[in-house]
Amino acid sequence: MHFASDNAGPVHPKILDALAAANEGWAIGYGNDPLTQRAIQRVRDLFEAPKAAVYLTATGTACNAILLATMAKPYDIVFCTPEAHIHEDECNAPEFYTGGAKLSLIESRDALMEPAALDAEMTKRGSWGVQGPQPGAVSITSVTERGTLYPLDHIAEIARIAHRHGTCLHLDGARFANACAALNCTPAEMSWKAGVDAVSFGGTKNGCMGVEAAVIFDPETAWEFELRRKRGGHLFSKHRFLSAQIDAYLADGLWLDLATAANAAADRLTRGLTSCRDTAFRWQPAANMLFTDMPRSLHRRLHDAGAVYYVWEGTLDGDPSGTATARLVTDWSTPDDAIDRFVDIVSQT
Amino acid sequence: MHFASDNAGPVHPKILDALAAANEGWAIGYGNDPLTQRAIQRVRDLFEAPKAAVYLTATGTACNAILLATMAKPYDIVFCTPEAHIHEDECNAPEFYTGGAKLSLIESRDALMEPAALDAEMTKRGSWGVQGPQPGAVSITSVTERGTLYPLDHIAEIARIAHRHGTCLHLDGARFANACAALNCTPAEMSWKAGVDAVSFGGTKNGCMGVEAAVIFDPETAWEFELRRKRGGHLFSKHRFLSAQIDAYLADGLWLDLATAANAAADRLTRGLTSCRDTAFRWQPAANMLFTDMPRSLHRRLHDAGAVYYVWEGTLDGDPSGTATARLVTDWSTPDDAIDRFVDIVSQT
Amino acid sequence: MHFASDNAGPVHPKILDALAAANEGWAIGYGNDPLTQRAIQRVRDLFEAPKAAVYLTATGTACNAILLATMAKPYDIVFCTPEAHIHEDECNAPEFYTGGAKLSLIESRDALMEPAALDAEMTKRGSWGVQGPQPGAVSITSVTERGTLYPLDHIAEIARIAHRHGTCLHLDGARFANACAALNCTPAEMSWKAGVDAVSFGGTKNGCMGVEAAVIFDPETAWEFELRRKRGGHLFSKHRFLSAQIDAYLADGLWLDLATAANAAADRLTRGLTSCRDTAFRWQPAANMLFTDMPRSLHRRLHDAGAVYYVWEGTLDGDPSGTATARLVTDWSTPDDAIDRFVDIVSQT
Amino acid sequence: MHFASDNAGPVHPKILDALAAANEGWAIGYGNDPLTQRAIQRVRDLFEAPKAAVYLTATGTACNAILLATMAKPYDIVFCTPEAHIHEDECNAPEFYTGGAKLSLIESRDALMEPAALDAEMTKRGSWGVQGPQPGAVSITSVTERGTLYPLDHIAEIARIAHRHGTCLHLDGARFANACAALNCTPAEMSWKAGVDAVSFGGTKNGCMGVEAAVIFDPETAWEFELRRKRGGHLFSKHRFLSAQIDAYLADGLWLDLATAANAAADRLTRGLTSCRDTAFRWQPAANMLFTDMPRSLHRRLHDAGAVYYVWEGTLDGDPSGTATARLVTDWSTPDDAIDRFVDIVSQT
Repeated sequence: MHFASDNAGPVHPKILDALAAANEGWAIGYGNDPLTQRAIQRVRDLFEAPKAAVYLTATGTACNAILLATMAKPYDIVFCTPEAHIHEDECNAPEFYTGGAKLSLIESRDALMEPAALDAEMTKRGSWGVQGPQPGAVSITSVTERGTLYPLDHIAEIARIAHRHGTCLHLDGARFANACAALNCTPAEMSWKAGVDAVSFGGTKNGCMGVEAAVIFDPETAWEFELRRKRGGHLFSKHRFLSAQIDAYLADGLWLDLATAANAAADRLTRGLTSCRDTAFRWQPAANMLFTDMPRSLHRRLHDAGAVYYVWEGTLDGDPSGTATARLVTDWSTPDDAIDRFVDIVSQT
Repeated sequence: MHFASDNAGPVHPKILDALAAANEGWAIGYGNDPLTQRAIQRVRDLFEAPKAAVYLTATGTACNAILLATMAKPYDIVFCTPEAHIHEDECNAPEFYTGGAKLSLIESRDALMEPAALDAEMTKRGSWGVQGPQPGAVSITSVTERGTLYPLDHIAEIARIAHRHGTCLHLDGARFANACAALNCTPAEMSWKAGVDAVSFGGTKNGCMGVEAAVIFDPETAWEFELRRKRGGHLFSKHRFLSAQIDAYLADGLWLDLATAANAAADRLTRGLTSCRDTAFRWQPAANMLFTDMPRSLHRRLHDAGAVYYVWEGTLDGDPSGTATARLVTDWSTPDDAIDRFVDIVSQT
Repeated sequence: MHFASDNAGPVHPKILDALAAANEGWAIGYGNDPLTQRAIQRVRDLFEAPKAAVYLTATGTACNAILLATMAKPYDIVFCTPEAHIHEDECNAPEFYTGGAKLSLIESRDALMEPAALDAEMTKRGSWGVQGPQPGAVSITSVTERGTLYPLDHIAEIARIAHRHGTCLHLDGARFANACAALNCTPAEMSWKAGVDAVSFGGTKNGCMGVEAAVIFDPETAWEFELRRKRGGHLFSKHRFLSAQIDAYLADGLWLDLATAANAAADRLTRGLTSCRDTAFRWQPAANMLFTDMPRSLHRRLHDAGAVYYVWEGTLDGDPSGTATARLVTDWSTPDDAIDRFVDIVSQT
Repeated sequence: MHFASDNAGPVHPKILDALAAANEGWAIGYGNDPLTQRAIQRVRDLFEAPKAAVYLTATGTACNAILLATMAKPYDIVFCTPEAHIHEDECNAPEFYTGGAKLSLIESRDALMEPAALDAEMTKRGSWGVQGPQPGAVSITSVTERGTLYPLDHIAEIARIAHRHGTCLHLDGARFANACAALNCTPAEMSWKAGVDAVSFGGTKNGCMGVEAAVIFDPETAWEFELRRKRGGHLFSKHRFLSAQIDAYLADGLWLDLATAANAAADRLTRGLTSCRDTAFRWQPAANMLFTDMPRSLHRRLHDAGAVYYVWEGTLDGDPSGTATARLVTDWSTPDDAIDRFVDIVSQT
């Protein structure tokens, strides 16, 4: 019963096989090998973006931070939500890579950025002249950090505001595949067709070992990404082993299959918990992440039974009838019987 | 006939197997898993340094730059040689991670830092007061970027100077194993016993897929490394796959076997070329890297025959009798027959 | 009728005279002159802090940002209010000087930081481990950016929380003198006796030409400030002209006289406006800065009559009966008749 | 007998008077006042550059570092000489402001950058691709840090090389006026007509209190300078007091008169010393700075007689017949009799 994170499950066997296959013989380093070219082409094909610049990094934080550094200057602001991974969970990586840009928090509802609040803040900041930092970029995440999804027209609205203020829109797609699967849309529809300028297209949380693709639809500033990646220490010498992951991930729709499986597991869990008296979802689950309130006594029983997950809000200490919030995440490998066992324990209350 | 780099050869099968083995089931991320603890303990054991802080990164540039950032302040100087990888080949990563420290180049002989020159420069800089940057750290590389080696007492002398000026000594050990194998010394002897304060202990160039261990002998500032690694985007979520590499690398002396093999290949190549009329070593080869002058006509013949290596100095254009310098690097996988074929072509002149 | 800012009035004649007096003959640069030593001693005496490290800068932004950089690491958080000058009006200078620390906004009431909210946020952040930035420093401003004042015990409470979480407390004292005058307390009482670790002691807004003193009560890290000042380009070669200002500013209580005069002018304005039907203070004025709502029609009449001030919220366009907020600031030079004329126009409605 | 630095003499009375005159009444801050506009226009007129962007800072380090940050990216190289003030005397300010660009030292002769060496290094660096930092900007100083001068065609040659490699040329003109006076050329001839893209036009060392003008001939990126100045803490609120200095400095040719006087003083000193047996110039004096070898015994006699200057190389300790090098700098205020007394003491040997 492992629901702590989608980065805690195993790598999919096809990805591992691809690593072994890529290990045949000698390959020039730093991304100048044929496998890298093929992987990049696959990303372009997936996004229906033949001119897009595509770069691989091993971590999502690197992908996000380097992309933001190509979009925002040190004297700029990056607008995001209070829940944003770039704000909460990256130990100031965006500030580091941008050379000191400021993250400004825009009001959100269900972890989705409020367009009106964004517009108001950008208007205010844009009128300040040299005294204050300038609007630099907007960054949103989908699947959000609370498990919710941006409808495509919501993304489009954010993009229009960002562009009207002369900035770019970045999409943190650590769970991009899960969002596509849930919305039943294409990667192009969820990105450039909705006005997104650059995507961190995640692989790590969806069955890869460690790879994210930075996709920049206007390749004009691509060279800058490459240099910033290198000076960040993120250009892999044995680059083929990043490329092999992406190559296998995009072959035969594996990326979508894995996300679909993860979402299905979450759906099974959601349906199971919905009927339980003692649980209450904080946000309506939409992809592969659930937040649910439960009594402390129930948490303890689950932990005693071996369930692993983060207590996202509250603590397990204190009055047993008090509640604390569980964060439950599924991935492609989550077994049905683990879900059923979990639901079983919960429903016994 | 592949001699371009020791990062272009294949990953050793035992390392690949270790990745597959580590993929069993679920493991908590970010290095809090048992395999990571075991790998770290192996590094401590190898270095006979039970209290050392050990952190893993996927690239050598990251390992070097984050270590330097824990040793030198933004208003400091890092002293290195003109040949240093941190100066020449990391696209300003040390300047980036330190927040703008300066790299100051100390005269070298055979790519080995001259102690007297270091002492003079540190004395000068240390006496300048607030007008100029302060002595921050010293960084050397062994095997050096020219294939030469620091004798242990040379390292000790550099360390004494660094410490006398109140700074620390960093050893870029991208080819640490090759140096140990060549000098027939222990990792402890080549590091803390000689006064080294922190090592970038390389795995990538010696058969791993992408892993380097930062070893800090005084664990006092270890926490800072961890935070700087995270904000640099270098903390792997699926950390077990870095750990698995180091774990296998250090099991049963694999690290030393691979380096010994690489050095033996270089030695075979060196012996072969020594007898050739048309070649002249720029530096006496000592580990797994050779620099040799050859006539352009010979370079062309080698390239036509499929030999792959970097022309390190000069160009292949121009008068065929003119010379250009080849950089030839071997790794654990370099086959004897490739070496013999290469020597054969060279000796036919 | 000039109420735009306390940095728009003239320099006090005694300060100008001091510059002329300091111009006699030759003086070694960079602060190694006797006048600088005397000025620094005066600051120490004023603060009853004989061991304090004192450094001069020409701007408040420099003073704040360099102080914060000595208190917070690049992977840290500086906690401040949403109204803080360091957040709103310094174009990311704190992010720049700290090397990318994050400013985290703590709930405020009347622009005063809420102790409970600070404690909660520091507790949360302190428990996150390496994934997130660490508590680094707390920064408050008094007189605040909304013209309110921290009672001394409020400062002490903030200090206790900051220290309990292992951080330091910085006081942005751009209007430190106005606060002392209003509270009728000593500089020591408003700083180290209340637990403040470092003060940006402002001179520029209170009759100087351009000088602020960084006062660090624990001189341990003083040297770092000096180096960060130099590399920020803030060490003046003709340093005596900064020192002369501070020297004259602190002689014979000039600093307090000027602040008292500025506060008295604001008080006269406050009393005049209090009786006017059409104005409403947004915050109860406490020192030398007022925020008052007024109908647009009144704003226009004031502007037509030559009054100069910032419309702090709202715009003058639109329905004349709608309101907009004026920010009115006085300084030592604000003439009584300008105040009376202003009040006269307002009371004619 | 004060020859330590041209920043140690007094401010010229006309500059002090201008500060007093600028103090009349109220003026809006941050450079939006009429005096600032007039001062900027004077700089444009002086340089015959009606479209140039002009910004004022209070220190030369700030002016240099912010200009370099608008010309070079964090992943770039700034090429300068080993003697450059930006390398030796600014405590890593260029690295700080550029966000971590590297300063690469180009061989010099008499502190003048060697064009061939620059070309070779830029060619090498430009061909390295993403592995290494990119050519970003070239920076030279005239009057150089050794008192020598760039002939105009030397500047033009450097500019051609810089431009051919796609970079810009920065001129550190801390002693720009002294160079113009010595070369008898116009500011335009020594800057944009010779291919210079931006100048740090110094005032501080030539009779001002503390002001330097950044002159950017292509105003395209001007806005960026403004934001970087603000976030560096270098935008003065009481900006009129920077402007007043520049305004008076450029009125009636004061800038040139002061430099001419300083150069004449140095010339008098040079002629006096030339006939002395015991002195030997390290470089032929060309403006207002001399470096001369003298026996220790002579140094001691000079010091005993009250002469103040820096011993630039060597020490006064040791064998009296050994030599050490004096750096002697004159400014507009250096009295003839001080020079004559100095020469007198020297010639008595």
